[in-house]
Amino acid sequence: MRIVVDAMGSDNFPEPDVHGAVLAAQESPQDDIILVGNQTLISSTLQHIQSIPKNIQIVHAEDAIAMADKPAVVGKEKPQSSMHIGLNLVKEGKADAFVTAGNTGAVYAIAMLFSLRRIPNVKRPALTIIFKFNNKPVILLDVGANAESKAEWLAQYAIMGNIYAKYALGLSSPKVGLMSNGEEDSKGTQEIQEASRLIAQLPLNFVGNIEPRDVYNGAVDVVVSDGFTGNIMIKTFESSTRYIVETIRKELRSSWLTSIGALLARPAFRRVREKINPDEVGGAPLLGVNGVVIVGHGSSDKISIKNAIRQARLAFEGNVVGHITQEMQLSAIEEAQ
Amino acid sequence: MRIVVDAMGSDNFPEPDVHGAVLAAQESPQDDIILVGNQTLISSTLQHIQSIPKNIQIVHAEDAIAMADKPAVVGKEKPQSSMHIGLNLVKEGKADAFVTAGNTGAVYAIAMLFSLRRIPNVKRPALTIIFKFNNKPVILLDVGANAESKAEWLAQYAIMGNIYAKYALGLSSPKVGLMSNGEEDSKGTQEIQEASRLIAQLPLNFVGNIEPRDVYNGAVDVVVSDGFTGNIMIKTFESSTRYIVETIRKELRSSWLTSIGALLARPAFRRVREKINPDEVGGAPLLGVNGVVIVGHGSSDKISIKNAIRQARLAFEGNVVGHITQEMQLSAIEEAQ
Repeated sequence: MRIVVDAMGSDNFPEPDVHGAVLAAQESPQDDIILVGNQTLISSTLQHIQSIPKNIQIVHAEDAIAMADKPAVVGKEKPQSSMHIGLNLVKEGKADAFVTAGNTGAVYAIAMLFSLRRIPNVKRPALTIIFKFNNKPVILLDVGANAESKAEWLAQYAIMGNIYAKYALGLSSPKVGLMSNGEEDSKGTQEIQEASRLIAQLPLNFVGNIEPRDVYNGAVDVVVSDGFTGNIMIKTFESSTRYIVETIRKELRSSWLTSIGALLARPAFRRVREKINPDEVGGAPLLGVNGVVIVGHGSSDKISIKNAIRQARLAFEGNVVGHITQEMQLSAIEEAQ
Repeated sequence: MRIVVDAMGSDNFPEPDVHGAVLAAQESPQDDIILVGNQTLISSTLQHIQSIPKNIQIVHAEDAIAMADKPAVVGKEKPQSSMHIGLNLVKEGKADAFVTAGNTGAVYAIAMLFSLRRIPNVKRPALTIIFKFNNKPVILLDVGANAESKAEWLAQYAIMGNIYAKYALGLSSPKVGLMSNGEEDSKGTQEIQEASRLIAQLPLNFVGNIEPRDVYNGAVDVVVSDGFTGNIMIKTFESSTRYIVETIRKELRSSWLTSIGALLARPAFRRVREKINPDEVGGAPLLGVNGVVIVGHGSSDKISIKNAIRQARLAFEGNVVGHITQEMQLSAIEEAQ
């Protein structure tokens, strides 16, 4: 397997990106890791590493995309960006997957409009996030690729999410739910209600409308949501978690007795942190584009980058793109009949 | 002030409802508290109380609405419900506010279609929730009254939320934000973008698009959201909080050392629980109906009921309904010009 890693992606690039790539290369010596970005910068970062794995390569890119760059213009204005060049390596068959912790909107726009483009019949690629709750993966899509929502897009998200859960995560019959403001069929916007009817006709294990609690309690494996709501949902999760953890920290520090308690309880808190940390999974697959693309969090450290690369491996090994291509063709034929 | 309290509202009715009403009556001897519900049941609950406050009255209602009842039919099928009778007391000027911890959809439907009805020019009443983060109230609306969203409704939510923050919560120039999937103007659905333009023209302190983190960090006082997203947001907050707290509890119990730590830290955890507990505020105002209506959580205990009654008092004393009536008239006139 040949995996391209954007060396210029994360907020603190190139350190986490390069070091994460090295860790991944050490973990899987049979794979090739191709770092794409500024050659000088990458080389000088690699110099600090004792023994550079042989399966690390560098492809130079003149330009890089910043977090502040506007996704709508970067495809045209920065054709020599590490993202653009990296995605094209996959498009041209010179690599099997692309991993970046960079500007999500930019990778979406470049992949969809300039490089890999969509898998035939896919209306809108979706950004996916994989959480782990109680050691069980839950995948949510769309978490922000498309602010608008149409019933048909949501049905396609269900197809793609189901395939990812099955072939990349290895679940035998993933339970698929549709995020709504209540479990009853009558709940949701008209678009959501229509999507529910469409998904119910698909050959997958659809459990119907779900609510946020079902994301945490193991009731579903795949959460289908419109991108506007999905994006706000994961940000609510992130910021409420941060708020609660900060409130706990503040209160624990407010007296010497509770401070001692906190000290003794430290191992437990460390395990909690590991459990609620989305970086464990490391990357969010962009599903529906014609190639494996994994997008990591901007704040990724080297471990998250390594995990994102592992996610790319799972997606490639599971032939997720092939399965989506096939399913979309089948459902397009059915629709035409 | 005369406040009607639904004795048949909460999941564990009538205990929390009746006892909460008694606490409120003791707290404000100058107010009248009218318990509406099954007279026999209320009386037998009151019998367990040492000294029943003189300012407690009972109004009998033959019927009660269950949590499982369908909001769409209860108005017609149960005209003698405690909710229906209680709301009518306000409508007929025999009381100043109505408080219930019952079926939210039902109180919305009965208030809007059978009893109080809308304030003139209000398109859609909104369900509001008041959180307290870092001891500062934040009000969110709509959190689920209307699944669909129109830009004009969202602009009206901004007007109503601003009035509530000003006149019931006493904030001098509330900061109003519009929930979206990013802070830039270009973010959001078309409806959200149009709402942003409409709200920017209103005479209030609009800070533009906001993200979930702004709910927690004090950046805004009023969060305007479509009801579908708002509902999912507050449920994500609730269920992620529960998940994190349970994860912490489980990890703390996993060894004797951390268990001892947890024991010492107990006072801190108790304070955290108080801080993140939405029952502190107790009730969610239903804004836009022609009278003060406060809806409590089904799981309310007597303290939450008492706090919901206090919220009703604040809304009435601040003349929230009068202010909304006036503002809506003004904006209707402006629109006509």
